[in-house]
Amino acid sequence: MQTEWAKQSSAEIEVVFLGTSSGVPTLKRNLPAVALVRQGEVFLFDCGEGTQHQLRRSGVRMGRLRHIFLTHFHGDHITGLPGLLMSLQMSERTTPLSLYGPPGLGEMIRFFQRMMHTHFTYELQILEFEEEGKVLETEAYWVEARRLEHRVLTFGFALVERPRPGRFDVEKAQRLGIPPGPLFGQLQRGEAVRLPDGRWVLPEEVIGPSRPGRRIAYCTDTRPCPSGVELARGADLLIHEATFTHDLYEEAVFRGHSTAREAAQVALEAGASSLILTHFSPRYQKVEPLLEEARALFPCTWAAHDLARFQVALPKGDGHEREILVQKVPSGGQRG
Amino acid sequence: MQTEWAKQSSAEIEVVFLGTSSGVPTLKRNLPAVALVRQGEVFLFDCGEGTQHQLRRSGVRMGRLRHIFLTHFHGDHITGLPGLLMSLQMSERTTPLSLYGPPGLGEMIRFFQRMMHTHFTYELQILEFEEEGKVLETEAYWVEARRLEHRVLTFGFALVERPRPGRFDVEKAQRLGIPPGPLFGQLQRGEAVRLPDGRWVLPEEVIGPSRPGRRIAYCTDTRPCPSGVELARGADLLIHEATFTHDLYEEAVFRGHSTAREAAQVALEAGASSLILTHFSPRYQKVEPLLEEARALFPCTWAAHDLARFQVALPKGDGHEREILVQKVPSGGQRG
Repeated sequence: MQTEWAKQSSAEIEVVFLGTSSGVPTLKRNLPAVALVRQGEVFLFDCGEGTQHQLRRSGVRMGRLRHIFLTHFHGDHITGLPGLLMSLQMSERTTPLSLYGPPGLGEMIRFFQRMMHTHFTYELQILEFEEEGKVLETEAYWVEARRLEHRVLTFGFALVERPRPGRFDVEKAQRLGIPPGPLFGQLQRGEAVRLPDGRWVLPEEVIGPSRPGRRIAYCTDTRPCPSGVELARGADLLIHEATFTHDLYEEAVFRGHSTAREAAQVALEAGASSLILTHFSPRYQKVEPLLEEARALFPCTWAAHDLARFQVALPKGDGHEREILVQKVPSGGQRG
Repeated sequence: MQTEWAKQSSAEIEVVFLGTSSGVPTLKRNLPAVALVRQGEVFLFDCGEGTQHQLRRSGVRMGRLRHIFLTHFHGDHITGLPGLLMSLQMSERTTPLSLYGPPGLGEMIRFFQRMMHTHFTYELQILEFEEEGKVLETEAYWVEARRLEHRVLTFGFALVERPRPGRFDVEKAQRLGIPPGPLFGQLQRGEAVRLPDGRWVLPEEVIGPSRPGRRIAYCTDTRPCPSGVELARGADLLIHEATFTHDLYEEAVFRGHSTAREAAQVALEAGASSLILTHFSPRYQKVEPLLEEARALFPCTWAAHDLARFQVALPKGDGHEREILVQKVPSGGQRG
């Protein structure tokens, strides 16, 4: 499946905001949830009430959802989970689905199942964790979790791609007289090869330096904190909560949230390349004040809106220079 | 409060459909929920995921919600409950709220509260019942519950108004020489009065026959069944599920649902005046086939859509003749 998806999909990671309010939904903003689409595989971060509705509207394919990460168990971040799991069941899903979150997640799922008379014919893998670390790891990427500073046990996450092998320089290979065919593949896999004329060619002669992977960090709900900075360290994209404008700093402290200025400070301190603000208090009908506040410190900032869609391109360079990889793209169309 | 609301509100009962799909939401239809607004008091029947979003869109005032009735614990009927309760908490509600449903309701609420670290500062009254009967009773109306036939324990409900006193005939009172003032009030309260000239006047001389109350029945999810017919007996409005067209009769039987034709048969057998179909399978992008099927048997039928709004007028007559009290009215505006 993975290979088939990869073929259909682009190299960009898509970031689709499904809900950008906090606490309660508004007419324009749903409760928190963000989908990442990477090579046809969909990752969901948080799952507020109405997330399945928003997934339908977004064009992100629910069938390709593989991993759901829950930051914490405040209602606005999880009330969409039972409905989403049930709708996946009713769509006759067979692909396994993995859930990641703080302790209690399994108990919650079992309670829903018992209460709502639901069984799942697809495999539901539940990973609860209390400690920081990698909660998911593959050959291509990992997802790490770190404890944030909120009123209850809360984790932020970062999706981190491993470096990709360097580019194979076909022209140089031809100049070196390497015949196209199996020898190309051996060099690409990092093996030295012997040419028909007896010469040896080492992989580094035709393969460029390895290329960096991308890092996308998701920090909500939280006060600005060292763990948030660590998650965002050198990130190509930091998604950070900005519940309040800085004039409500004391309310932010009291409620365990961040102001837009504080979100920008985290991005700055972490050396992130781009910042997207989300999780806005419903008191803000327009979020321009939050955006301006953050941009004053960290210019490469966007304010998320529901169904907003961003792409994080593949890095072009060798990783020595920071590039801005994020761009906002039109919403709509099917993807995932 | 009740009196204040009554002053602000009209004599019609408003019926507002918040969700008209079944199982899973579609782009046009949310999960099951219907609001009744009677003299400024809001009754909610079922609470699928996204009900609080739909309440916001409908103009029904969430602050006036007093009673929530849950038919059964399949996910599509209850997944909106925790979010709604939490949003009411965040709106700093102080008015008590009553929840009615099958056994397990209290356990579910306590689980949500513990899991989601929520407390309610408003009083939450929880009434669980396994037996049929009146689950709510006031001087003006009662709500009765009867067991329907579904795959799990399921109740249908009827809101039944008590008869209202007859009209006070002011002209006749004046012809009888009764001076306007306290004597009018005594007669209206059913007391005999003595006039200044010594004559006695009995209440029935100036007050017409008592006027019937209205009955609105809500039957979902269910096979057509005698309890459904009893709930709908003589109802001014029957809201009945019609998950399938009758060509899918066997699927309806298997899943414990009704076809549109069966819903019409229930209305007919019960002598109901009007029927509104809802709870449509998401397979129907257009519900005209269901509507036509029902109308062939029971002409006074509507098909609900999300945010559709109906009014049930006060009966004009003496109850001996059936009147059609229901009319569809434009959506929008604030009410409740």
